[in-house]
Amino acid sequence: MSPPSSPHPVNLADKLSQFDEHWAPRTVAVFNGHDVMVVKVKGEFRWHHHDDTDDLFLVLSGRIVIRLRDGDVELGPGELFVVPAGAAHQPVAEEEAELLLIEPTGTPNTGEASTAAPRLVI
Amino acid sequence: MSPPSSPHPVNLADKLSQFDEHWAPRTVAVFNGHDVMVVKVKGEFRWHHHDDTDDLFLVLSGRIVIRLRDGDVELGPGELFVVPAGAAHQPVAEEEAELLLIEPTGTPNTGEASTAAPRLVI
Repeated sequence: MSPPSSPHPVNLADKLSQFDEHWAPRTVAVFNGHDVMVVKVKGEFRWHHHDDTDDLFLVLSGRIVIRLRDGDVELGPGELFVVPAGAAHQPVAEEEAELLLIEPTGTPNTGEASTAAPRLVI
Repeated sequence: MSPPSSPHPVNLADKLSQFDEHWAPRTVAVFNGHDVMVVKVKGEFRWHHHDDTDDLFLVLSGRIVIRLRDGDVELGPGELFVVPAGAAHQPVAEEEAELLLIEPTGTPNTGEASTAAPRLVI
């Protein structure tokens, strides 16, 4: 991502309008070694965990359920949840939902490099 | 902040309804050593910078301007901006605005411990 010539805001709705795929996060900003990403989701993702990082989910539109070993968390717009490092989780969305995610740059979204979505910057 | 007995989402509007003060961030979650905070702002904050951390602003309601040495960035709802570490900035809001902020836990909001708001967790 080449730096802009002058400072400008990142409009999340504008970024989300640029793609349709599900479970393929786009990096829209970087922050202290983390990627700030937007993603569209629908259906069940795989159960996975991240050994070394917490996982921040903020719902922008729609609803998701994050299944955890000790219960489900249901999130709607304006709600966030941090999955602690090491905790197995499965994000699920009955209908399409749009999320903001923050993870350290290079974190595989599935917890494993071999199955992870590529890093896409928009 | 004692951990909840079962996982539950953080509703940002609910957290914002719990206080009225301006420029006094409340920590609503922790993430990889960072505080995820909500804050209400109105008027001009002081020019400041953080030597060691980027500063993430996401507007939840209202509008703000972040004045920077190389130009102003105006943000509305659903827009975010990352102020790079070391960059002097002055947040300004003509009318009340509500923001999500993320900074490493312990970062003084003014850039200096002596003038910083206390850490408040809700």
